[in-house]
Amino acid sequence: MGKNCIVAQSGGPTAAINASLAGVISAVKSSDVYDKLYGSVHGIQGVLKENFLDLSEMNEDFIERLAITPAMYLGSCRFKLPDFDKDEQPYKDIFAVFEKYDISAFFYIGGNDSMDTVAKLSAYAEKTGKNIKIAGVPKTIDNDLLVTDHTPGFGSAAKYIASSIREIAYDTYIYDLESVTIVEIMGRDAGWLTAASALARNDFSIAPHLIYLPEVNFDKDVFLEDLKKELKKHKNVIVAVSEGIHDKDGNYIAASTAKDDKFGHAQLSGAGKVLEYLVKDELGVKVRSVEINVLQRAAGHMASKTDLEEAINLGSAAVAFTEAGETGFMTVIKRISDDPYTYETDFSDVSKIANEAKGVPLSWIKKSGNDVTNELVKYVRPLIEGEIDGFYKDGVVDYVPIPHLVK
Amino acid sequence: MGKNCIVAQSGGPTAAINASLAGVISAVKSSDVYDKLYGSVHGIQGVLKENFLDLSEMNEDFIERLAITPAMYLGSCRFKLPDFDKDEQPYKDIFAVFEKYDISAFFYIGGNDSMDTVAKLSAYAEKTGKNIKIAGVPKTIDNDLLVTDHTPGFGSAAKYIASSIREIAYDTYIYDLESVTIVEIMGRDAGWLTAASALARNDFSIAPHLIYLPEVNFDKDVFLEDLKKELKKHKNVIVAVSEGIHDKDGNYIAASTAKDDKFGHAQLSGAGKVLEYLVKDELGVKVRSVEINVLQRAAGHMASKTDLEEAINLGSAAVAFTEAGETGFMTVIKRISDDPYTYETDFSDVSKIANEAKGVPLSWIKKSGNDVTNELVKYVRPLIEGEIDGFYKDGVVDYVPIPHLVK
Repeated sequence: MGKNCIVAQSGGPTAAINASLAGVISAVKSSDVYDKLYGSVHGIQGVLKENFLDLSEMNEDFIERLAITPAMYLGSCRFKLPDFDKDEQPYKDIFAVFEKYDISAFFYIGGNDSMDTVAKLSAYAEKTGKNIKIAGVPKTIDNDLLVTDHTPGFGSAAKYIASSIREIAYDTYIYDLESVTIVEIMGRDAGWLTAASALARNDFSIAPHLIYLPEVNFDKDVFLEDLKKELKKHKNVIVAVSEGIHDKDGNYIAASTAKDDKFGHAQLSGAGKVLEYLVKDELGVKVRSVEINVLQRAAGHMASKTDLEEAINLGSAAVAFTEAGETGFMTVIKRISDDPYTYETDFSDVSKIANEAKGVPLSWIKKSGNDVTNELVKYVRPLIEGEIDGFYKDGVVDYVPIPHLVK
Repeated sequence: MGKNCIVAQSGGPTAAINASLAGVISAVKSSDVYDKLYGSVHGIQGVLKENFLDLSEMNEDFIERLAITPAMYLGSCRFKLPDFDKDEQPYKDIFAVFEKYDISAFFYIGGNDSMDTVAKLSAYAEKTGKNIKIAGVPKTIDNDLLVTDHTPGFGSAAKYIASSIREIAYDTYIYDLESVTIVEIMGRDAGWLTAASALARNDFSIAPHLIYLPEVNFDKDVFLEDLKKELKKHKNVIVAVSEGIHDKDGNYIAASTAKDDKFGHAQLSGAGKVLEYLVKDELGVKVRSVEINVLQRAAGHMASKTDLEEAINLGSAAVAFTEAGETGFMTVIKRISDDPYTYETDFSDVSKIANEAKGVPLSWIKKSGNDVTNELVKYVRPLIEGEIDGFYKDGVVDYVPIPHLVK
C-alpha cells in the first residue's frame, strides 16, 4: 500500500470547495498514515497528465486563507469516465499514475458528476483488487445531492441570495411608483437556492412576494393573476424565479426567442427576462429583471461561516474515514437538531448518491405553487449563519494566489 | 427666521446617501441654531405633500445603523422644478410649506438633478428675499459632479466593482479552456465605475484585460483585434465595458435589436450582451457576459468605510455652513494628498455644478482606448479603503427598517 494521496476538485465553483480542500490538506498534514499530498490540477484530467502541485508543505496561514478563497484552487474539469466494462484504458492510465506516485488514497471534491467518478474508480479498484481508497467530498451550490442533509457551498450561496434580495428590495422601495422586480436565481432542476430567497423576509418587508421553483410547473396565466393580486396589496412586488422554471409540458420558460439580433445570432433569454417582457406587455406596469450572476457562487466575501466550517470538516472526515479503511464513499452531514443547530459528519455509499438529484420536497412548497413553507426557512436558516472577516487588502477582496491556473 | 430644517433625498440609490443623512441628523441634533429636523419623504415632492418624518428624536444607535443602510431612507423622486420665471407656483407652494413649518434651512442630498433643485430654490429665495438657506449634499455612484474631488457613493460602488471583477476572475480561471468574459458596468455617460475595475488587478492576475469607457468612441473591429491579441497571451480574457459605450457617431453599442421575442416585444440588449454575441459569431470562442446588477449601487454590505465617513462629513458640513450663513451651495471634497490620503470638506456655488457632468479625463485613458492609466488607479484607491462590520442578523444583511416606504 502506498503512502501518498491525491486530492482534486471538479464541477462548478463555490465559496466553500476550497474549505474542503483545506480540510483535506490539514488532515493529511497531521496524519500518521499518509505522507505526501498531491493536488491534481484540473480534476481527474490532472491525474492523467500528472499535473500535480505538492500540497504537503502548505503552511497554516496559507491554508487558513485558502479556506476562505472562492472558486477552485486546483481548477476544475468536465470529464466523465466511461464504464470500465466498455473502455478500461482511462482506468489503467489513472491507476498506473497512482502506482507511480505511491498513492494510497484519492479524494475528489465535487458534485454529482464527480461522485460518478468516485463510484467508478472505487468499483474498478475493488474489481481489480487494488488497495487504493477512493473518497468523495460533496460540494454544490445546488444542494441536490442525496443522503447528505445539505451540501457545502449551498449555505454561502443561500446567504448571498437572501442578502441580495434584501438589498434589491431596499433599492426598489425608494420610488413612489408601482413596480415589479423579477430576480432570476441559479438552479436548473432544483429550486433550493431560489427557495432560500424567502430568508430575505423580515418584520416590515415580505419580499420576495412570490417564489417560483422548478419543482412545480409554471403557468404564465396563473403567474399574471398572482402578480395582479400582489399589486393590489403592495406597491413594489419582488418575484424570485429559478432559471429552470418550466411549463406543464416541461418546456423551459427561458428559451431561445428564435429570432436573430443585429449580429445575426439567435438570442437566448433567461426566465427573468422572458417574464419581464410578459409583465410589460400584459400588465403595463414598471418592471425590471435582475439576473443574480456568477457572484452567487463565487462571492467568497459573503461566505457563511457555518458553511465553510462544515466544508472543512467534511474534507478532514474524508481523510479520517479512509484511514479507518473505508472506500467508495462520500462524506455526508447528518443534522441532529435545528435549534440549536447541531450536526455530525458521516459517510455513505457513493454509488447510491451519484447521478441522482434531490429537489425541494413538494411538502415545503405552498399549494399555491408561488411560495415556500416555514419548514424550508427553518431548514436553511442555520446554514447561512455566521460571517468571516479579514477578506480585504487595499480595499479589495483578497484571496490566495492561483498563478498555476492563470495564463 | 425659522428654527427648523428639512432634509430630503433624491436620484438613484447608493450605499452612502443615508450616511449623509445621518451626518445631517447628527449635526442638527447638536446644533444651537436649529431646533426640529423634518425628513421629507420622496424628495421635494414630500415637501409639497407635507409628508414628513420627525428625525429630531432619532437615537444614536439608530443613526449609526442608518449610516450603513444602503438605498434611501427617505425615499426618492424624479422631479425637476420648472424655471420660476415661467412657472412660479411650485416655488410659492414650497416656500409656503417652509413658512408653515418655520423652516430656516433645507438640505437636499442627491446628484445632478437634485443640485438643479438646490440652485433654483436658492435663486428663488434670494430673488424673493426669503432668509431660508438651501444646501446640497452630493451623492452619486457615477462620480460625475463638478468641483468636488469625487462624490459619496462612488467609493463604495467602485469597491464593489473591483471586488466583483476579482471574484468573477477567480470563477473564470478554473477551467482549462480559452474564454472571454464581458462584464457590463453602470455609467452611461461617465466611465468612472468601469475604470475602477482596474483596481481588481494584482500580482498574478491582470483582469480586467481590457477596459472600455464611454469617454472614447468604441469600434467593433478594433475591439475584436484587441481581443485576439489578448487571447494569444492569456487563456481567460476578462473585459470591463461601460453600459454607455458608443461608436464614433454616438450610437450606443447597447441597442434595440429591433426584433421581437416570443411575446412580441422588441428586445433590448445591454452592451455586454451585444458584445457577447459579436464575439461568439466572430471569434467562435467560449464567451459569457455578466451584467453587474443593481447591487453595484445597493450593496451596503460592501460599503467603503472611507466613503461612508466622507458622506457623513459632507452631511454635517452642510449644516455647519448654513449655520455660518451660507446658502446656494453644495458641500465638496478637496483632496489634499493621495498617500497618505487626506482631504477637507468645503462648499461651492451650486449653480456652477448643477446640470454639468464630469467624465474620466482623457489623460487617464490609455491611447489604445482599452485601458486606464496608473493615475486613475492612484485616484480611486483611497476611496475604496476600509470595511465596516456588523451588518448581519440571522445570517442576512440587516439595515434600519423603512416601513414608511413599504406598502
